[in-house]
Amino acid sequence: MSAILGRSGPRPQTLPDGARVLRSALATEGVATTDERFAAWLAECERTNRMLVERVPLTELRGWRFTEGDGSLVHESGRFFSVDGVRVTRTGRDPRSWGQPLIDQPEVGILGLLAKEFDGVLHFLMQAKIEPGNRRRLQLSPTVQATKSNYTKVHGGAATPYLEHFLRPGRGRVITDVLQSEQGTWFLGKRNRNMVVETTGPVPVLDSFCWLTLGQIRRLLTVPNLINMDSRTVLACLPVAASGWPDEPSGPGFAADLRRSVQAGEADGPHTDVEILSWLNDVRTETGQSVERVPLSALEDWRVSRDDIAHRDGRYFRVIGVSVESGHREVKAWSQPLLAPCGTGVVAFLTRRVDGVLQVLMRASVEPGFLDVVELGPTLQCDPANYADAPPERRPRFLDRVLGATGDVRYDVVLSEEGGRFHHAECRYMVVECDDAEAVEPHPDFRWMTVRQILSLQRHTNYLNVQTRSLLACLSSLW
Amino acid sequence: MSAILGRSGPRPQTLPDGARVLRSALATEGVATTDERFAAWLAECERTNRMLVERVPLTELRGWRFTEGDGSLVHESGRFFSVDGVRVTRTGRDPRSWGQPLIDQPEVGILGLLAKEFDGVLHFLMQAKIEPGNRRRLQLSPTVQATKSNYTKVHGGAATPYLEHFLRPGRGRVITDVLQSEQGTWFLGKRNRNMVVETTGPVPVLDSFCWLTLGQIRRLLTVPNLINMDSRTVLACLPVAASGWPDEPSGPGFAADLRRSVQAGEADGPHTDVEILSWLNDVRTETGQSVERVPLSALEDWRVSRDDIAHRDGRYFRVIGVSVESGHREVKAWSQPLLAPCGTGVVAFLTRRVDGVLQVLMRASVEPGFLDVVELGPTLQCDPANYADAPPERRPRFLDRVLGATGDVRYDVVLSEEGGRFHHAECRYMVVECDDAEAVEPHPDFRWMTVRQILSLQRHTNYLNVQTRSLLACLSSLW
Repeated sequence: MSAILGRSGPRPQTLPDGARVLRSALATEGVATTDERFAAWLAECERTNRMLVERVPLTELRGWRFTEGDGSLVHESGRFFSVDGVRVTRTGRDPRSWGQPLIDQPEVGILGLLAKEFDGVLHFLMQAKIEPGNRRRLQLSPTVQATKSNYTKVHGGAATPYLEHFLRPGRGRVITDVLQSEQGTWFLGKRNRNMVVETTGPVPVLDSFCWLTLGQIRRLLTVPNLINMDSRTVLACLPVAASGWPDEPSGPGFAADLRRSVQAGEADGPHTDVEILSWLNDVRTETGQSVERVPLSALEDWRVSRDDIAHRDGRYFRVIGVSVESGHREVKAWSQPLLAPCGTGVVAFLTRRVDGVLQVLMRASVEPGFLDVVELGPTLQCDPANYADAPPERRPRFLDRVLGATGDVRYDVVLSEEGGRFHHAECRYMVVECDDAEAVEPHPDFRWMTVRQILSLQRHTNYLNVQTRSLLACLSSLW
Repeated sequence: MSAILGRSGPRPQTLPDGARVLRSALATEGVATTDERFAAWLAECERTNRMLVERVPLTELRGWRFTEGDGSLVHESGRFFSVDGVRVTRTGRDPRSWGQPLIDQPEVGILGLLAKEFDGVLHFLMQAKIEPGNRRRLQLSPTVQATKSNYTKVHGGAATPYLEHFLRPGRGRVITDVLQSEQGTWFLGKRNRNMVVETTGPVPVLDSFCWLTLGQIRRLLTVPNLINMDSRTVLACLPVAASGWPDEPSGPGFAADLRRSVQAGEADGPHTDVEILSWLNDVRTETGQSVERVPLSALEDWRVSRDDIAHRDGRYFRVIGVSVESGHREVKAWSQPLLAPCGTGVVAFLTRRVDGVLQVLMRASVEPGFLDVVELGPTLQCDPANYADAPPERRPRFLDRVLGATGDVRYDVVLSEEGGRFHHAECRYMVVECDDAEAVEPHPDFRWMTVRQILSLQRHTNYLNVQTRSLLACLSSLW
């Protein structure tokens, strides 16, 4: 019967994918690529990959124009993306209303990571890629990072290498495939298709590409600005086995409690899975959110000039223009707008250890760009500068707790957001441990969860926001 | 620590909910209510519950009016729902464009089923409820069936009984809580919150309510027009254990293969879970769908009269008006529009038995009212009369196979759609078994799945459409 009906790829191996991913995660020394070879390859990429990025006024971006009356900033093809004004009105739990620019990019792009076994260990094909908005220009991206405009060649450029591994017909065995949201305060309804596809055939390795184990990537997540946002979100969507872990590190350490949290059963956390889902449904049904398009020129708190689009208090972000020249991209030269945050963000998990199992304090994050009102955000995600003189009740919860953390900081690394849309957008990613005796008050927007409970939602859309996924990837460096 | 942070309800019992639901499903004789008492209760409800429903012209519906130029049909309070025109444009796999009326009811209502253990067996509090659109007036509904307008008392009526069990604070232990879509070709973005909540306290039982085991309800699903749509969708969202089933019926029967399919592991089906999700993502990214509001009067193929809104060929459905008087409802008399389908629908699962495990042929159903483009539909869902003279390529796949089925029909019962919005909307729900040797061709819109794979998606939103959930409930009567 299967001859008649077909199967969409080879059957799963004897070992489940989650166990194979775990094996790769424990291969910290690499197999196909030694750490020495990796270092040499990265240095060579840094030396040879160049990109010239220059600020230009928005009015001088080739191919871009403001619509009538500064309504929005669009590309003349009608593709890629546009910068639009929106008025957000929120009712219910936290009623307020504001106007802001948002990037509208309705197409679903592909963030694709190619996987292949070497000596029985899964490796992932990472790309050294320069993006115009990156402060540290060259970062490690997934194998493929392509908007639909990009891979259907609207820009008239060369084909995206390795893309065929992710498209039908003919793609390999799918390990991960999920539509995931991106920054819901900067994008309107943007989702990318996060894919990990395994191939068993020969793969020619181009100059800017390198096979790494997940163990190697985990260690590189402690290097500032090296593993890019697109990599982090795809990595966070990999299945990880809940059983079959090696015993050490055993004992009462943070790493051991984290490992036990990844392997935790439903009864090991303070809430059942359905209680978590029910809480999100409470927020969804109690919160009304309307996002209405308005002309950029109608946003009272923002001003549009030939140079940029900016908030009148110098807060939040600006939209600026850049002109780019690159020898290594599908298109050699182009212009585009970038969203430039005004400060450095903080993205943090508060964690605690209870009975030998790590718990993470998750927040119901309502963001205007989300398809379904709310997703799970980390404990804290904000740009502290925006709240410098805010009254206490408007300051994000746990901001002072996180910024004041000292000895109990388990992770604290600056990482970049997407350099193809954002200019020098960096966040300080932090994992902070609370003393179990500390009084962290209950609040309807927060719930303590085990890492396994967070991971169980990674394969479905509209649950984990991009900051959570990023930090989930970072957390894996602490096992 | 839990004293500080609180828990949202009592911890799970020693036995997981899925196992307790299974135990209730196997209690076909009832515990709290014998079948005899149930029959007497139902007869008494039929005798005493009355509702007078009369057709009235749309222009004479109290509280309802057409907006300027027959734009849409709205309630003067701005609440409840409206009948709007939309233009649907679909690109990609099945490009076409059409205009139609849709019911716009943006609020999320509650379909709540109260659960309680009697002698260690879960019972569910069913309500005998009359709806104006039902042909068989009195049907069994969940404990609570309330729109937000309803339970926030926009209509100025009495409180909905038992509603407090489903609202914060103070609700009981949540067994099920998921936002589920309803008819995506009749509703615009409608979702209801499907909830099952367990209480351990005393519950006074009002006249029109009755405690039944899931086993009793399963048998009642073979009675035409008795278990209403809202009950079916909530029942389909109950967790059912994948292990711990009794051995019989063993052997090669349909029921045995169905039971094995409910207990199946991922390797027992032709596709892995991620392959199924990946297929849905293919459809999501390859299909463009825009749903644009237009005035009802701008729909070329539809005409608006004082009497009804109807398709010019007498196809699909009409929107009609009714005036209602009831002694048993929160409000004693009201008027409202109802959507009246022109024919009787057919909703069918084609199934096959492979190596002792039942598989169901699921369809990627793209519907204009869905939040996320596509959900899993049954093999077939349509009104055959709409295709009476359609060319073969426009006839729904498997329509003739299902209507021509004879000896291999495992379930064939007429059941009603929601009588609060639809008038005499009935579908023939069918489960048809294919001979394994039959050539059912592969097609990109269809995938064979185990019942367990379908069930694994029931706790997340935007996966199983209402016809699938209805038929999944029906399927449980065949164990």
